[in-house]
Amino acid sequence: MFTGLGAFPLTPMNEQGVDEKAFMGLVQQLARAKVDTIAALGSTGGYAYLSRAERTRIAHLAVEAAEDVPVMVSIGALRTREVLALAEEAQKVGVKALLLPPVSYQKLSQDDVFSLYETVTANISVPLCVYDNPGTTHFEFTDELHGRIAALPNVGSIKIPGVPESPDLACARVERLRELIPSHVTIGVSGDVFAAVGMNAGCDAWYSVMGGLFPHTALAITRAALSGDADEATRLSDALKPLWALFRQFGGSFRVIATAAELRGLTCFPSVPLPLRTVTGEGRDQIAAVIDALELS
Amino acid sequence: MFTGLGAFPLTPMNEQGVDEKAFMGLVQQLARAKVDTIAALGSTGGYAYLSRAERTRIAHLAVEAAEDVPVMVSIGALRTREVLALAEEAQKVGVKALLLPPVSYQKLSQDDVFSLYETVTANISVPLCVYDNPGTTHFEFTDELHGRIAALPNVGSIKIPGVPESPDLACARVERLRELIPSHVTIGVSGDVFAAVGMNAGCDAWYSVMGGLFPHTALAITRAALSGDADEATRLSDALKPLWALFRQFGGSFRVIATAAELRGLTCFPSVPLPLRTVTGEGRDQIAAVIDALELS
Repeated sequence: MFTGLGAFPLTPMNEQGVDEKAFMGLVQQLARAKVDTIAALGSTGGYAYLSRAERTRIAHLAVEAAEDVPVMVSIGALRTREVLALAEEAQKVGVKALLLPPVSYQKLSQDDVFSLYETVTANISVPLCVYDNPGTTHFEFTDELHGRIAALPNVGSIKIPGVPESPDLACARVERLRELIPSHVTIGVSGDVFAAVGMNAGCDAWYSVMGGLFPHTALAITRAALSGDADEATRLSDALKPLWALFRQFGGSFRVIATAAELRGLTCFPSVPLPLRTVTGEGRDQIAAVIDALELS
Repeated sequence: MFTGLGAFPLTPMNEQGVDEKAFMGLVQQLARAKVDTIAALGSTGGYAYLSRAERTRIAHLAVEAAEDVPVMVSIGALRTREVLALAEEAQKVGVKALLLPPVSYQKLSQDDVFSLYETVTANISVPLCVYDNPGTTHFEFTDELHGRIAALPNVGSIKIPGVPESPDLACARVERLRELIPSHVTIGVSGDVFAAVGMNAGCDAWYSVMGGLFPHTALAITRAALSGDADEATRLSDALKPLWALFRQFGGSFRVIATAAELRGLTCFPSVPLPLRTVTGEGRDQIAAVIDALELS
């Protein structure tokens, strides 16, 4: 469940609603590619932009389209009571794991966040992945807090936001965290640009944005890294440098991948909710050129 | 509307719901103190933690309890379509102004945010205050963007997040912004610690967290500064240094003011939604001691 490639599909949506057909197409593509986990309704899957009813509906469709690949969904929300309600509904429709980001508006303390995970893990029956991404949640975990949370029942994995670029520093980072958490809790790297170096440094999983649209490309990197062929993983990742450059240019992976899905005809324009917009004009042509040249699939 | 003291009352709430009676008591206290604007459902008023139906209900109660003091409410939401729906409902219940923070989850570009304000200002009939607070919205306005937005119809004010501590630098900051915006658009300072220096530097309003609970104390500073008695405003603000120190200690003003409201018996514990919590233990005693010693009212 919490090892290998966790692929995060988009949820195509606009002012009219969610494009369920396109969503199921994206999930089916991941199931056919045999990714290890389908992580629907992550940040990439736009959970933050959807109502509880929409999220439950999408979780249900994901489980249906995923066939035998396990589905994980985010239950992130600003209020604990909403998180608990989302967890219950998601489990009812058959998800196999839950992803919990400590979403914040007013700043949360380390103790607030521990209490949130303590409450939630005591009220679920499937395993939970801790989502650590200050870029979207605006909360910074200390390693000490990771240790306390990882010791709670039902915690299965930690999704970390990235690792240092240098392989030595990346190893040190992963080892430091590993010392603080139980051995059954896996560590998954996110931030696609860090994937190869993170898995080479000992991460058990890659929680991947690009893998939600281009699973074959992401699986090749994952399989190389996790089978111990660090050089091949690095080579495959380095070949994607033009993609990583686009991520930097357009303020992150989300907009680039959403634009790429439109370009490939897998979603209809517009596929993101206002005030978000996918890339148009010259930038769009640039993205088209890169995804074609790299033969992403 | 957009000058003087804009006081931001708390919305007491917990896992059981909103304490409407306590909310109306807080608003009535502001109306009796004759603050210039009652800004309900701001960040302090917990708009981000409430459903649309709850927000419309609270806006209605605020208008009722505010008597002849104009009410402004936040219409912040992640999606433009939700912002538009909130604006419509708030206007229907009689608010006199709208406050719009560019709330983000996926990072917004300057152009995304301009489009948001362009769409919203074209669809409202009461004036709008632009809410600039990277601490809660995670969006950084450029001054150029402020200029473009302030030129849109129905924009009446900009709520800025603070000013430099030095009076000279604060004046330069306010003047630089003033040059870029139409003369009918006011500038209001927020971040209570910056209030006196901000108004002394030419801000027309103070959008105040502490003023939502202690209007008399906040009005004294406001009246001194806006009548030109900069020294008296500075003296009154400096006298509150123990309060500013608490804001720093507890990660901002929100938790301290919510705790103070409980201590004064104006709200019941717990008055904030989990995973947020008000301050307990030793910290709570500290807050009690400071608000009593300073005779805040």
